[in-house]
Amino acid sequence: MSTSTEPTAVVSYEFDRDTAVTLREPGVYDADLSAGWTIIHAVNGGYLLALLGRALGDHLPHPDPFTISAHYLTPSVPGPAVIRTETVRTGRTLSTGQASLFQYAEDGTEVERIRVLASYGDLDALPDDVRTAATPPAMAPIENCFSAADNPAPRIPGSSAIADRLDLRLDPACVGWAVGAPSGRGEMRAWFGLADGRDPDPLSLLLAVDALPPTSFELGLKGWTPTVELTTHVRCRPAPGPLRVSITTRNLAGGFLEEDAEVWDSADRLVAQSRQLARAPRP
Amino acid sequence: MSTSTEPTAVVSYEFDRDTAVTLREPGVYDADLSAGWTIIHAVNGGYLLALLGRALGDHLPHPDPFTISAHYLTPSVPGPAVIRTETVRTGRTLSTGQASLFQYAEDGTEVERIRVLASYGDLDALPDDVRTAATPPAMAPIENCFSAADNPAPRIPGSSAIADRLDLRLDPACVGWAVGAPSGRGEMRAWFGLADGRDPDPLSLLLAVDALPPTSFELGLKGWTPTVELTTHVRCRPAPGPLRVSITTRNLAGGFLEEDAEVWDSADRLVAQSRQLARAPRP
Repeated sequence: MSTSTEPTAVVSYEFDRDTAVTLREPGVYDADLSAGWTIIHAVNGGYLLALLGRALGDHLPHPDPFTISAHYLTPSVPGPAVIRTETVRTGRTLSTGQASLFQYAEDGTEVERIRVLASYGDLDALPDDVRTAATPPAMAPIENCFSAADNPAPRIPGSSAIADRLDLRLDPACVGWAVGAPSGRGEMRAWFGLADGRDPDPLSLLLAVDALPPTSFELGLKGWTPTVELTTHVRCRPAPGPLRVSITTRNLAGGFLEEDAEVWDSADRLVAQSRQLARAPRP
Repeated sequence: MSTSTEPTAVVSYEFDRDTAVTLREPGVYDADLSAGWTIIHAVNGGYLLALLGRALGDHLPHPDPFTISAHYLTPSVPGPAVIRTETVRTGRTLSTGQASLFQYAEDGTEVERIRVLASYGDLDALPDDVRTAATPPAMAPIENCFSAADNPAPRIPGSSAIADRLDLRLDPACVGWAVGAPSGRGEMRAWFGLADGRDPDPLSLLLAVDALPPTSFELGLKGWTPTVELTTHVRCRPAPGPLRVSITTRNLAGGFLEEDAEVWDSADRLVAQSRQLARAPRP
């Protein structure tokens, strides 16, 4: 169960290199938060979730996150971190674990950044029965969507290193915010890939659900939308090729909003569903 | 912060009596799982969540669950239990805590049933801004809906004590399962109240999101749909009067399904949103 801690297994792509964890002692992993996955100065929450997900997948007897609930405690910064994992319960088809990511204060004490509770299983062991009523999001073809290199460039103002590691193509219907004309609808849709061509897997799905601009931009709200809690269900191992991510906010109230994400793979399967509670930017 | 442990404060209604917790020592609460909230022999997961929610609300500096993620580990049975809580982080507007509910094996050792991670705040301190695109579910008027006393009686086969403590009125469009004619749609809707007239509050919302018959019944599947994980966002303190609960399943695949619940209060406000991942009954 230690393949993910062998550097040789994780050097080929940026995402794998930057989510690598090194076993320090049973259940304890050293990690280094890369500056390459930041938005302005904040480390992306989906990238952090993937790091915790990798550590848990190494620690637990089952490989894949079926449902992972993350509560974000304090802002993470690039640099060293330690992930402490705990096996809560192991069963035949599912095992449940907990993990916390800590960074270090100036005096060396550990400061907890995120805590997650997750149930893992083996996606390859699931039966093929599918009785879904879900349909893929209505999205413009990828060649008609906008990347950070286009004009208008749907880039979050300020330097966002993560934009260079993602191949995000935003649906034209959701880029109004980039030209000062937000749609007023709490919708964000994009084709999602990794810039270096790495194919999706359950860990990169944890990044995909939190990698788009916030729906609050299209609601005409500028500024930071910090995640309080993010729960992701991985429902299927994604097929190679670009993903489609559709995020919807229905209820902005009391200074908080939910973001519901669906991730579809190139085989038209719903591969992940997530919901987060986030603080709305101050109007 | 100990009002919920003073019996005098919690004797008036069944729900409060049966979710009462008694402080044993700082962070540790004794509880007794009532047989009054069982479905067949299983203790209802929403009732258990409310118990944990009450203990955390007592332990944390903030009173209301804003987002609470529960992973269900082993089946709970009526009888004594102990809830161990931990303060993970306290902030000005939010505090995060963890709680586990344990029962006792024959040899007296503790067996963990459920673990939750939650962020609490103060619903009364939230601003009034509401920019929601959500609309209440289309539901038949309560007088046209079906209670367990009606014919057809939408009762889960077998003795379910919880049916006597709830005032559930199922939408006629979702009771086909009770007469062997499921709609084939993953939808379940009901008016929800407590039989003894207790008005809703944030804790009873935690019960409401998991108290309806499973959507799998309307998909033509019989049998148990055990919850793996259930995350609930409480968005607003509910107004007095009956609640409307609408549950939707879009993706039944690989032996698992999600249940998305919305709870609306009598003032037409979306007061809670939840999603759970559950095991589908064997076809």
